[in-house]
Amino acid sequence: MARFVVIGQTATASADFSLEDLAGSSGRLDVLLRCVRAALLYSHGVRRDVTVYLVLLAGPDAPRVLRFDGASAKYVRPDERPLATLAKKALGAERPVGARGFVERRHGIAVADGGLDAVVADLGPGRAFLLDESGDDIRGIADADLAGDPVFFIGDHLGFSATTRERVLALGGRSIAVGPESLHSDDVVTLVTNELDRRRPRGAPAAGL
Amino acid sequence: MARFVVIGQTATASADFSLEDLAGSSGRLDVLLRCVRAALLYSHGVRRDVTVYLVLLAGPDAPRVLRFDGASAKYVRPDERPLATLAKKALGAERPVGARGFVERRHGIAVADGGLDAVVADLGPGRAFLLDESGDDIRGIADADLAGDPVFFIGDHLGFSATTRERVLALGGRSIAVGPESLHSDDVVTLVTNELDRRRPRGAPAAGL
Repeated sequence: MARFVVIGQTATASADFSLEDLAGSSGRLDVLLRCVRAALLYSHGVRRDVTVYLVLLAGPDAPRVLRFDGASAKYVRPDERPLATLAKKALGAERPVGARGFVERRHGIAVADGGLDAVVADLGPGRAFLLDESGDDIRGIADADLAGDPVFFIGDHLGFSATTRERVLALGGRSIAVGPESLHSDDVVTLVTNELDRRRPRGAPAAGL
Repeated sequence: MARFVVIGQTATASADFSLEDLAGSSGRLDVLLRCVRAALLYSHGVRRDVTVYLVLLAGPDAPRVLRFDGASAKYVRPDERPLATLAKKALGAERPVGARGFVERRHGIAVADGGLDAVVADLGPGRAFLLDESGDDIRGIADADLAGDPVFFIGDHLGFSATTRERVLALGGRSIAVGPESLHSDDVVTLVTNELDRRRPRGAPAAGL
C-alpha cells in the first residue's frame, strides 16, 4: 500500500472557503485536492491500495488532516468542484466530544486534529521518501526500497518549510526526485504512482481492479 | 516544441456549459481542461514551448478545436474553474465573417472550426505518436525520435474512436505507452512531459524559464 502525505502550508483547515473561488479563498486547497485525484483515480476507478493525507496548516481550525482512503472511498470524482465539496463537508462536520485520531466523515474520508504528528501516529511502518528536486532519481531506487508500504511526503506550491523537511528527514526519509524540473504537486504524485505501477510484477493487477 | 492533441469525443464545442457542473454539463470538457494544466504549467510558470489542441466533437457547434499556445498564453491557471471560464469565453465569441483556421480569442487561446483536419492543417512537420496502453514503452523510444517537434495524440475518458485511431496511424503515428495501467488523460500528458524533460540536455533550461 502506498501513502501520500501532502503538506499544505497555506491550506485552510476550515470549511469556510468558497467553491466559486477555491484557490483564492482556501489558501490553495485546490493544489492538495488535485493530488487526491492523481493518487486515487485511474481509468478503472479507484486505486484501493492508496491512502492520501492532506495536512492543512492554515486558518483558525489548523492544524488538521484530511485522510482519503482508497480502500473505502466513495464518491471521489476527478473534477475539482465535487472534490472540494466533499472536503468542505468533512471539514465542516462537528467533531464528536472525546474523539481521538481520525474520525470518518464520509465513505473513506476522515479528519483528525493535529498536523504532521497526527499523520505519523496513523502511518505505521513503511519507508519514508521526501519528494525534492535535488533528491536521488526515483528511477534509480531499488525495487525492494519502493516495495511494501512506502510513504511519500510532498510539498505544496511553496515547497516544504525547513521544519517539515527536518521532521521528515528525522523519520528516516530519503530525498528523491521525479525529474529535472520543479513540478506541480499533483504531477509529482502522478510520476511516483507511475513508477510504482511499473515496479509491480507483470500480471499482478492493480488493487483497484 | 511539443504538441498535445486531446480528442474529446463527447466534449461540447459550445459555450453553453455550466461552471457549477462542468463535468455533467460539458460532455466531460473537464477531462480536456486538466490536460491543459498538465501540459502548460509547472512550478516556474508556463511552458512556453508547448501547444495543446482540444478537439471538441460534441454539441451543435461541433466540430471545433481550442488551441492553447504556451508561447503567448496569459491567465492560464491550474484550477479548473478559471480554465473553464477561459474556454467558455473563447468558445462563446462571435466568429469573424470569412475567418479561416485558428482565430485568437484571448492571449494564446484560439478557436478553429473543424475537427482533426483543422489540427493537422495547423501542425506542420513533426513525428506523431498515439498514446495507447498497448503501444511501445515511451522510455524505450530513441532520443532522436522524441526530439524536434513531436505531436502526441491522446484520447479522453472513452479512449479513441476507431476512426480517430486509423486517422492518426495514417499520419505515420506510432503507438506508445506511458506505463502498464490505463490512466486519466492528464496523467498521460504529465508522464510524456516528464519523459521530454528528462531527455532535454542537462543544463538546457526549459523554455518557460
